[in-house]
Amino acid sequence: MSSQPLRLGLAGLGTVGIGVVKILEREAALVAARSGRPVVITAVSARDRAKNRDADLSAFAWETDPVALATRDDVDVFVEVMGGHEGPAKAATEAALAAGKHVVTANKALLAHHGQALAEAAEARGVALRFEAAVAGGIPVIKALTEGLAGNRIKRVMGVMNGTCNYILTRMQAAGLPYQTVFEEARQLGYLEADPNLDVGGIDAGHKLSLLSSIAFGTRVAFDAVELEGIGNVSIDDINLADDMGYHIKLLGVAQMTGRGLEQRMTPCLVPAESPLGQLQGGTNMVVLEGDSVGQIVLRGPGAGMGPTASAVMGDVIDIARGFVRPVFGIPATQLTPAVPARAATPAPYYLRMALLDKPGALAKIATCLGEAGISIDQMRQINREDQEDDDAIVLIVTHKASPADIEHALSQFSQTGVLVDRPVAIRIEEV
Amino acid sequence: MSSQPLRLGLAGLGTVGIGVVKILEREAALVAARSGRPVVITAVSARDRAKNRDADLSAFAWETDPVALATRDDVDVFVEVMGGHEGPAKAATEAALAAGKHVVTANKALLAHHGQALAEAAEARGVALRFEAAVAGGIPVIKALTEGLAGNRIKRVMGVMNGTCNYILTRMQAAGLPYQTVFEEARQLGYLEADPNLDVGGIDAGHKLSLLSSIAFGTRVAFDAVELEGIGNVSIDDINLADDMGYHIKLLGVAQMTGRGLEQRMTPCLVPAESPLGQLQGGTNMVVLEGDSVGQIVLRGPGAGMGPTASAVMGDVIDIARGFVRPVFGIPATQLTPAVPARAATPAPYYLRMALLDKPGALAKIATCLGEAGISIDQMRQINREDQEDDDAIVLIVTHKASPADIEHALSQFSQTGVLVDRPVAIRIEEV
Repeated sequence: MSSQPLRLGLAGLGTVGIGVVKILEREAALVAARSGRPVVITAVSARDRAKNRDADLSAFAWETDPVALATRDDVDVFVEVMGGHEGPAKAATEAALAAGKHVVTANKALLAHHGQALAEAAEARGVALRFEAAVAGGIPVIKALTEGLAGNRIKRVMGVMNGTCNYILTRMQAAGLPYQTVFEEARQLGYLEADPNLDVGGIDAGHKLSLLSSIAFGTRVAFDAVELEGIGNVSIDDINLADDMGYHIKLLGVAQMTGRGLEQRMTPCLVPAESPLGQLQGGTNMVVLEGDSVGQIVLRGPGAGMGPTASAVMGDVIDIARGFVRPVFGIPATQLTPAVPARAATPAPYYLRMALLDKPGALAKIATCLGEAGISIDQMRQINREDQEDDDAIVLIVTHKASPADIEHALSQFSQTGVLVDRPVAIRIEEV
Repeated sequence: MSSQPLRLGLAGLGTVGIGVVKILEREAALVAARSGRPVVITAVSARDRAKNRDADLSAFAWETDPVALATRDDVDVFVEVMGGHEGPAKAATEAALAAGKHVVTANKALLAHHGQALAEAAEARGVALRFEAAVAGGIPVIKALTEGLAGNRIKRVMGVMNGTCNYILTRMQAAGLPYQTVFEEARQLGYLEADPNLDVGGIDAGHKLSLLSSIAFGTRVAFDAVELEGIGNVSIDDINLADDMGYHIKLLGVAQMTGRGLEQRMTPCLVPAESPLGQLQGGTNMVVLEGDSVGQIVLRGPGAGMGPTASAVMGDVIDIARGFVRPVFGIPATQLTPAVPARAATPAPYYLRMALLDKPGALAKIATCLGEAGISIDQMRQINREDQEDDDAIVLIVTHKASPADIEHALSQFSQTGVLVDRPVAIRIEEV
């Protein structure tokens, strides 16, 4: 074993940072054996020095400024678990790379917005920039995709990657509660980001998907090209009706390279209730990787939390301690090609729900719109709800496979019929 | 990119070897971009040069002797996909390491028997010895355990890791066919090893478990200490009766470190039909890794076949091309501790099936034996089968949690009662 320790500068002493402190406190010998050298924290930084953090930090130098921390002579690896994609996290990461320090980060937003420049900076200095903790918590999916499956042309990446959204959706279903009630519960439980739209708007999950896409397809990170739709419009009615038909609603990410370009979407989808994705409960994440040689690999595990996220950070740190440096996104950043974004066009069945005026011929008009858009109907049901006071008819349709464009066209035609009570709901069904 | 290619010597041109040739033929540019340098095969070796192999081998030098191949000056990495744990595979692997060549192997038997010596040889020369393809086919589980979860103290490793056994068990259940019939089918389909006992005797899966154990617990590979029981005694009756109670029978591996030592077993178990392991069909493999920080990670994917296994080999090759060399079993081989084997003692519910003579008090005698062994009964059923000609009563018992020793004691007491028609069946229930 080398006696030269690997020295970490840890910026951020929230859940993840303290998780890293605790692992190194509890398992120093195990980590050293696996790393081939001791791994030690030399200095830390956080906004509030006085805060009680349930960990002994007295052995570490304190830096008020994370940039100063990142460039200290006694720091080999800058561990960035502060969060935020501008401001101090960005400045300190840039400073660390410029000073030739390795960087390990849990910051998906930072990489989704500035991954290209940061990767180029890291590779120009020959240092590592690693971000396992940024995607799918404790699941070593960045490693699986970038290294384990490196012999594959990746066909498709899918995943449920925001535990808060999955908690809200599974809790709505289990308790029969509306979105807003469960959203408030999640806020009380501290499951939501300070800006909840990062979670429920699908932005956080979209960040993660954009990082996986870059590795999978050798393209520059293109977060702005992710088709994003959050879960705020998912109603308990749709959850219940989907369940009756054997489906669960998930915030599902899908990225695939097509002849037209790169499709990336993070949207609510129906998935078969009995499928691995359909059975995913609460904060658990799942990622599906499909390669030309390997076929389909499915990875499941905790998507957040102190232990899982710190585990991911430590995996990256130990790789660096072992001397492993590879391109940030799998191939040199200068060789990543600009992503040509393509609107999702892969056909799929769709779930449609609408309230129709109780008029003769109303349903026929809807069916005609579908037929004219070239969409055939797999199932149609009229729902009679006991609590219904008005005379509107709730109609559920499951289509055969149709392209998103044809579905959009049909929806726009629906509005011409004059029989709709309000906007119809259309949700894609992924037969995963 | 370095212009210096990484040069492979490929020993074995069966399914896996040809899979590697095809990936390098089809995706040379992609592999080079990810590796940072071209990856080329310079020389090959196989038993029969004349065999038609559906791949163009004309650019590669041919060696009759794999030892000669392994030590060629124009070989940087010896890729061993011949199989067999003695003879040429062992000699060539030893020769490669002695000559300072990296080795990538798919040979679980070789490592299960000689992993310690080979790892010491590799580490003494500072070269890689990698074996992702040896365990769970295309699933990058060695990488996940050795690298991704390196910050964890591993609590338990479980898995279904022999696709042929899982194919036989799921086919028996789906078609209602007895073991021997499906075994013959599997043989016809070419799913079985030349020595079928390697598969159905649980030996192959046991090899794999012993390799995972070594990495997980920092112990020397201890294949001889794996409690092994194959699937040859799993009857269609038990599969059907278990199914009625909501369980499927799987050949399940479990390794865990206990206060008494290392438990390793590869035995048929009942698992809940709705659990991820219970739902596993055909040749698919699944591995469950449990760490103190990360919690539970589940990996699923194809356990065998040309593409998946070649994908695993290429993942290892690309790591080597990227310059990554780490200890074979995660910590230096000289630091691995001898495993102290412990008989499985973790309590679990058990499934018991027995045929009792149709005598008054027969069932009471059995219940008394269980009570005296300290085992309480969760469910008991008497099965009346229409095809039954004799008067024997088939009795099914599901116990509450009991230790394996208590179950063995009860079974030995059963035989004293004089009411058993034949040997009772006892299968552990894993609540995974």
